[in-house]
Amino acid sequence: MSLFEKHNKTLDRALEEIKNRGFWSPYFEIPSSKVYGEGKKEESINNFKAQLGNKFEIKGLDSDKYIGAETSPYGFELGITYPSIKADDLVQRSKEAMKQWQKLSLDERAGICLEILDRINKSSFDIANSVMHTTGQPYMMAFQAGGPHAQDRGLEALAYAYKQLADIPTNAVFEKPMGKDKPPIVVNKKLKVAPRGISLIITCSTFPTWNSYSGLFASLLTGNSIIYKPHRNGILPIAQTVKITREVLEENGINADLITMIMSDDRKETQGLVKNKAVKVIDFTGSTTFGDWLEDNAPQASVYTEKAGVNCLIVDNFDDLKAMSRNMSMALSLYSSQMCTAPQNIFIPKDGVTSNGEKVSFDEVAKIIAGAVEKLLSVDERAVEILGAIQNADICKRVEEASSLGEVILESKEIAHPMFKDATIKTPVIIKISAKDKDKYHNEHFGPVILLIETESREDTLNVWQETIELHGAITAGVYSSDEEYLEKVEDIAIDEKVNLSVNLTGHVLMNHSAAFTDFHATGDNKAANCALANDNFVSGRYSVVTIKRDA
Amino acid sequence: MSLFEKHNKTLDRALEEIKNRGFWSPYFEIPSSKVYGEGKKEESINNFKAQLGNKFEIKGLDSDKYIGAETSPYGFELGITYPSIKADDLVQRSKEAMKQWQKLSLDERAGICLEILDRINKSSFDIANSVMHTTGQPYMMAFQAGGPHAQDRGLEALAYAYKQLADIPTNAVFEKPMGKDKPPIVVNKKLKVAPRGISLIITCSTFPTWNSYSGLFASLLTGNSIIYKPHRNGILPIAQTVKITREVLEENGINADLITMIMSDDRKETQGLVKNKAVKVIDFTGSTTFGDWLEDNAPQASVYTEKAGVNCLIVDNFDDLKAMSRNMSMALSLYSSQMCTAPQNIFIPKDGVTSNGEKVSFDEVAKIIAGAVEKLLSVDERAVEILGAIQNADICKRVEEASSLGEVILESKEIAHPMFKDATIKTPVIIKISAKDKDKYHNEHFGPVILLIETESREDTLNVWQETIELHGAITAGVYSSDEEYLEKVEDIAIDEKVNLSVNLTGHVLMNHSAAFTDFHATGDNKAANCALANDNFVSGRYSVVTIKRDA
Repeated sequence: MSLFEKHNKTLDRALEEIKNRGFWSPYFEIPSSKVYGEGKKEESINNFKAQLGNKFEIKGLDSDKYIGAETSPYGFELGITYPSIKADDLVQRSKEAMKQWQKLSLDERAGICLEILDRINKSSFDIANSVMHTTGQPYMMAFQAGGPHAQDRGLEALAYAYKQLADIPTNAVFEKPMGKDKPPIVVNKKLKVAPRGISLIITCSTFPTWNSYSGLFASLLTGNSIIYKPHRNGILPIAQTVKITREVLEENGINADLITMIMSDDRKETQGLVKNKAVKVIDFTGSTTFGDWLEDNAPQASVYTEKAGVNCLIVDNFDDLKAMSRNMSMALSLYSSQMCTAPQNIFIPKDGVTSNGEKVSFDEVAKIIAGAVEKLLSVDERAVEILGAIQNADICKRVEEASSLGEVILESKEIAHPMFKDATIKTPVIIKISAKDKDKYHNEHFGPVILLIETESREDTLNVWQETIELHGAITAGVYSSDEEYLEKVEDIAIDEKVNLSVNLTGHVLMNHSAAFTDFHATGDNKAANCALANDNFVSGRYSVVTIKRDA
Repeated sequence: MSLFEKHNKTLDRALEEIKNRGFWSPYFEIPSSKVYGEGKKEESINNFKAQLGNKFEIKGLDSDKYIGAETSPYGFELGITYPSIKADDLVQRSKEAMKQWQKLSLDERAGICLEILDRINKSSFDIANSVMHTTGQPYMMAFQAGGPHAQDRGLEALAYAYKQLADIPTNAVFEKPMGKDKPPIVVNKKLKVAPRGISLIITCSTFPTWNSYSGLFASLLTGNSIIYKPHRNGILPIAQTVKITREVLEENGINADLITMIMSDDRKETQGLVKNKAVKVIDFTGSTTFGDWLEDNAPQASVYTEKAGVNCLIVDNFDDLKAMSRNMSMALSLYSSQMCTAPQNIFIPKDGVTSNGEKVSFDEVAKIIAGAVEKLLSVDERAVEILGAIQNADICKRVEEASSLGEVILESKEIAHPMFKDATIKTPVIIKISAKDKDKYHNEHFGPVILLIETESREDTLNVWQETIELHGAITAGVYSSDEEYLEKVEDIAIDEKVNLSVNLTGHVLMNHSAAFTDFHATGDNKAANCALANDNFVSGRYSVVTIKRDA
């Protein structure tokens, strides 16, 4: 049985589900020993511990030089080093490997990609540990978002690419009738899908796998080769991904250099790679500054960026403030708001809102929200499993400085982790400011800094909400309102500003949730991101079609 | 019956044919009175004559100022003027009209677009005259390429857009099972297709409709509004298109400002429009210089460019040089090589080629090619119907100066047109140069300038052919060889350089032919063009999807 036959059912279902956009997840999200194997969790923790302080070896990627200096946000050095190979060598090897890969049939490539996903899935526990101890995510999130949910994203992008490529026949016959007594004109055509070239994937420190598997599998299926450039503190999950992928490739007789990883302590070398004419696709998740630079400075490449946005939430007249605050408290606390989808700016009219016919003042609303956050995080053992650890020192500094922005509604406090004594864990700080102080909220305070913003009125809320999104982009937006007419206005603005909108969420789903096959992650048409994960546009710039025609 | 029902069959077939990529053309290419109506041709000529020297009025696009100074390459001033409306006004009106249009359902928009195409088709004779007398195309080509073939391109792009949008449900239900005894999580989602914004279409002087209808219908179906910026000598066909489109829109209760046209004698006004933040899509056909500038200077927009390439043809050992030269003579003569698909550089080994076991010297091959061109154009009445007229004075100058490039194999001669005594008609000039003189052939000599280039050997041909395409891009490429191994090498290079390749064409099909539903016009991945007409990539950057989610 070919790999394509082995995984065909998964692909077929994926092709259906990208059109349904309901719920579907082929990779099981619970770290269950029944699904993933007895003792796998313990084994993975032992593997992780054994790796600490050692070289991470990847077959075929040998080097005299090993570098790396990752730190776990849970308070210890990883001490793992990775092979450093010169960019020029990687480019050469990458081009060479692509020649073989692009000649495979679509189904052959699809079969191998699906097998890679399957094998990555089987390593979900291993990846959970590496994601946890590079990003600071709590364990459950690291398992889910770093593992199955990232794999879902990879499969989703692969399905979009497959859908497009399957619509391009490998051969066609042009047969044009020339009238009754004349023979038709007949031309035979071969249609060759040509990859754009080397696909460079630049990953971030918070969601290294989740944010990169879409680009990885979209690029692979369309025939491109991959060079990963991991964030300096998010190398291990990428190194694992590269290693597993290379193993599957090698098993199937494919030149494993189809995927490599650049580790360099020379900034110029990486920048040179970005502009290398062989690099024709770049996927990036990270800062707006670098994302904008990439969009402007790699004209030879299709550049897909997920940058920073300013996610904004409206609190309007709403009847169930308690349910709202319960949902919101989780949205604000999860992974210490180190998600590109977490809300930051919460707009509330200065005169408060109406709830069930009763007036509730701004300060009361603020108190309800702050109270819900406090309650959610009141038990340390539970809090650490929601908050995770703070990814880096800049974020800590930002939290400390936040109190100078305005009136502190809820102070951030440090929490001790029962297992990792040196972990940096902080509850969110909640600050009250005025909508007039645009310099304070017209930018992203990445991390657990929440701004409750006094607007002049419900109508003013609409204006400042729209203005912020228009000027600075947003990955997500939200609103709580019991007034359907008001909601319609908010929806219209969301469509105008091209931002995904969550309305009145009070259940399990948060505005930060973004799941493959149902949520387009970002719209790709505001300043926070120039692409969405994943859709037709995310894959169509990764290949071209060359037609060869010849008289029949 | 809705317009969608009226045209549904055409759309369904188009959706099939974009996947077959054989022959299909729904719009009849013969200027037949049976199809287009008795007396239509004569009527259209009278219409054209009556329009000369007069204002071209478009309902709803009134202005105090009318401008325009087109000249027919057939030797007379058109004297037609068009309403000039300020760019800022057009932008405002365009945005306003888009609000209504984007709220229509996909099928409503599709129905109206298909009706527009149908109505444009019914005006094919009118458009033939205007295309002929702005571009200089011969009448038959002006009818076909300006009319039905352009409409085919429009429908093709519309089909790609429809295919993608039809895969996005307007509503979805996210229902996630939570285990045996728990209710599932249910979230309702609305998915709104949002246009990018104003779509600016900048057209060229040689194929105003053929090169712009793809962008027009791709943008319209995805919800965008249109502002056309016609070439200063190619206004009339665009004005007709705008007028017909506005009529159909108005008949269907749609704000006709969805499509307008900018006529400005202020260069800054047009440049400002390119950078206007409301302009989110730009389609351009024209010079490499301006195309590159657009790609770099409109970061707010999805920019689709068709620029200049250097189309290269290889003559290798080939058994039927006569059939080759017959096909080639037409490829070199048609519309005086004023097609972006016409071959310019013909590489031939300096020691000649082998044909049926016999050695044929370079000069003999040159003679065969030149002789075929001479023969094809030997009768003036026939020649003018192939050559058309020279579009502008720069091209004439280029032809005159070409003789200084090298040895003249065939001189260009002027031909008198039997109907238009002041028409500028020139046969191609054929020059012999060396492959060492890269400065002479590493650029486009747009118009009837053909270079026969001596290479060191068959192998050297491959190198210089590849180098030219790699450095300067190409819309088309061709080869004549009876050696299948050699052809394989040529094909591999074509795929590497992402250029469409014609192999051994000796019949009716020319390497310059590019037909909708079968030929991707350009690949979009070499320097000649950043997009192909049309494919998934051509449409996917014209919209985004905004999701609105709410607990069920």
